[in-house]
Amino acid sequence: MAYKDKYPSVLLEDAVEAISSLPGVGKKGALRLALHLLKQPQENVHHFASAVNRLRDEVKYCRECSMISDGDVCSICSDRSRDHRTICVVESVRDVMSIENTGQYRGVYHVLGGIISPIEGIGPSDLTISRLVERVRDMVDLEGNAPSDVEIIFALSGDVEGETTAFYIYRQISGLGVRVSSIARGLGFGDDLEYADELTLGRSIVNRQEFRP
Amino acid sequence: MAYKDKYPSVLLEDAVEAISSLPGVGKKGALRLALHLLKQPQENVHHFASAVNRLRDEVKYCRECSMISDGDVCSICSDRSRDHRTICVVESVRDVMSIENTGQYRGVYHVLGGIISPIEGIGPSDLTISRLVERVRDMVDLEGNAPSDVEIIFALSGDVEGETTAFYIYRQISGLGVRVSSIARGLGFGDDLEYADELTLGRSIVNRQEFRP
Repeated sequence: MAYKDKYPSVLLEDAVEAISSLPGVGKKGALRLALHLLKQPQENVHHFASAVNRLRDEVKYCRECSMISDGDVCSICSDRSRDHRTICVVESVRDVMSIENTGQYRGVYHVLGGIISPIEGIGPSDLTISRLVERVRDMVDLEGNAPSDVEIIFALSGDVEGETTAFYIYRQISGLGVRVSSIARGLGFGDDLEYADELTLGRSIVNRQEFRP
Repeated sequence: MAYKDKYPSVLLEDAVEAISSLPGVGKKGALRLALHLLKQPQENVHHFASAVNRLRDEVKYCRECSMISDGDVCSICSDRSRDHRTICVVESVRDVMSIENTGQYRGVYHVLGGIISPIEGIGPSDLTISRLVERVRDMVDLEGNAPSDVEIIFALSGDVEGETTAFYIYRQISGLGVRVSSIARGLGFGDDLEYADELTLGRSIVNRQEFRP
């Protein structure tokens, strides 16, 4: 009996199969992790499994912005000190976390839950676009609120899918009179010109900004 | 509110904490895996968690060799076609799997479950050494079985801990008249001399073997 296609235990095989289904984890890495878990105290392993199960079973999504949340409305949307007339549109939960970590943004978010991608079969109806349009309409309809006080910022990836998604949303909200912007693109701070890709360098020249020393 | 020390959901934080306790998985990688699991169908996540739990709760260890097993005796020890008078002594379950994968060994194994390491506080009594000595004694006592028919092969790591462990076991079985050997060390097949470390190269000259074309 050799282990080429066989494991010493069916339980080990099942665990390796399950762990190797995670992105970026191969069969060898999964075996290493499984054997590691086998050496841990039983309660640690149970805690690990239950933390994963509870995340999947009990996490909620904010009814405003679709960010993951412990309650019906997330901590950002329920924070009255934030600017609720500025909505930053992002693809994923992780993007919200990245922008929050900069400490530079005081508006709210809208998590699309993906990006329009015909290749992967993801269309507008798979995303939270209609809820976003609804949110924008509601803000415009608010009394004493000029539509131009409302700003929608696209913080989507710079590839074809990201631009397609931004354009699709733009067409639906452009008639409402709100301001629409996109995050700045250019060379990173501290980047050498020498190592910049041509597309980024070209666009950063076209989109040059006033020099304010 | 920023996410520097805070997550949008306690459930997410718990899952990231649990996942990042795995070896080689940092906080960023754990977040990526947690958000991946969040997007999977609920039954897949449950299957993942239960495969991990069942591995830890239900796996057995062979009462002969301490290899992990679904039954009381592992598939190797219960295989009558194997040579039960040759025992290969290894540190871990993974070592057995590696040697089995070579297809070159027909004896049985003994899994120590670690290696003597004063720095990590692992002594002989933390390992399955006494069970190994018992197995060797039992084999020697078998009627019609010359002790020199029995061979113990050390397949342990080549560092100080590995050599200490081999020597400790050797002292306990050397009086029994069994043969004791160690896996061959030298340059790997296909290795260039140029890139071999000096210790390996030096030993491979001292331990040179007869040339048989």
